Amino acid sequence: MTDGESQTFGKDVLFQLQFTPMFSGLKEADIRSLTEGARVVTFGHEHHLYGEGDAVIDVYVILDGHVELSTEADGRRSVIEVARKGTVIGDAALFGEGRFLMTARVLSQATLLAIPAASFRAKLEPRIDIITHMLSTMSFRLRMLVRQIAELKLKTTAQRLGSFLLSMVAADEGAATVRFPYDKKLVADELGMKPESLSRALSKLAKVGVNSKADNVVVIADIDRLREFCAEDDLG
Amino acid sequence: MTDGESQTFGKDVLFQLQFTPMFSGLKEADIRSLTEGARVVTFGHEHHLYGEGDAVIDVYVILDGHVELSTEADGRRSVIEVARKGTVIGDAALFGEGRFLMTARVLSQATLLAIPAASFRAKLEPRIDIITHMLSTMSFRLRMLVRQIAELKLKTTAQRLGSFLLSMVAADEGAATVRFPYDKKLVADELGMKPESLSRALSKLAKVGVNSKADNVVVIADIDRLREFCAEDDLG
Repeated sequence: MTDGESQTFGKDVLFQLQFTPMFSGLKEADIRSLTEGARVVTFGHEHHLYGEGDAVIDVYVILDGHVELSTEADGRRSVIEVARKGTVIGDAALFGEGRFLMTARVLSQATLLAIPAASFRAKLEPRIDIITHMLSTMSFRLRMLVRQIAELKLKTTAQRLGSFLLSMVAADEGAATVRFPYDKKLVADELGMKPESLSRALSKLAKVGVNSKADNVVVIADIDRLREFCAEDDLG
Repeated sequence: MTDGESQTFGKDVLFQLQFTPMFSGLKEADIRSLTEGARVVTFGHEHHLYGEGDAVIDVYVILDGHVELSTEADGRRSVIEVARKGTVIGDAALFGEGRFLMTARVLSQATLLAIPAASFRAKLEPRIDIITHMLSTMSFRLRMLVRQIAELKLKTTAQRLGSFLLSMVAADEGAATVRFPYDKKLVADELGMKPESLSRALSKLAKVGVNSKADNVVVIADIDRLREFCAEDDLG
């Protein structure tokens, strides 16, 4: 598909939606009804999806790729989250003022399901069970944001970087090799540190067996050891 | 009233609820119905209101005083917010797992309206308009948390402390005298910095005309000048 081209969605997308927090636990007919008119769209590197404060026309489910969510404060941009496959974005804008809370920009390439907001909202109206489900989902997102604030307040830069690396590891123990999924400048933004601090944090992690290689590859010698370091109280 | 003593509420509390985000815009009869069985309770210094993970029995509106909201991560406590008069706390726990997201502890003294969660939830069921209103409120809270994350990622300690001081100032310009509303250790926790960093941040603010006096009093010589400093891009 070329950039921005769209198509209606099939069984494979429906299957993926059933594993997305907002839709999981809902009946197939309900998911079909809520997503009526939805299109699968693919966008390339740095595509501006929507801006903070824009009126919501579609909400999106990330089917593949990464989308950067940022907000402006006093004219400077802060990356709040890099949303991954399986995340619904823009859902908080469905209610209240009906405007996006953050700016969304595609990294490298992303395939999204664009769900028309107006019909979604209209379908919700007579369905108390689905609305209660959405309130639960939103309370879950609140929980995630509270976690992120706690991390920012409690952890050193090295610990935050360590946790980020651990989030990409599939194994529970032993060694692992991971690659930064997008450029390091953006990882620094997402973790709330300057690029220089990220380099220093990476050097500090060498002491617990984490070693940088070429091509953004990082080798973790011992997952358990890194996990312990990230949970340590003694902030340096 | 002695500690924990309760009473039903009158017109004055109803008036205050009409200025609380969760209830503002709702009809008096709806507010009365949602808060059926609610009691006004007063608690003293360090009263443990509820713990993170506890099942929600009551949600609270702060009628007077301050309540500290904290969360635990890896055994360490992080203050997420010190909630003030007019804030509803525990509302995100009404849905989903029905458990509190944070631990709530009264600072000095607080008067609260305790609203039974079960009857609140039951009253919501047939009322789509009220539920949509609640979804809006929750999306507003998400917006506030996103702001806080952006501040933590973008601002220096001195700028965060400056913004905190400005939030206590009633005037728009000129000079102002404010007093720390609770002890400085807790202000440091809330702003995500160590007590030493708060002292250093306070010293830095002297350069923009902010001076510490005895008894936790702070004199701001020029509100505009402090506001400009807090919005500056050039992080030092």
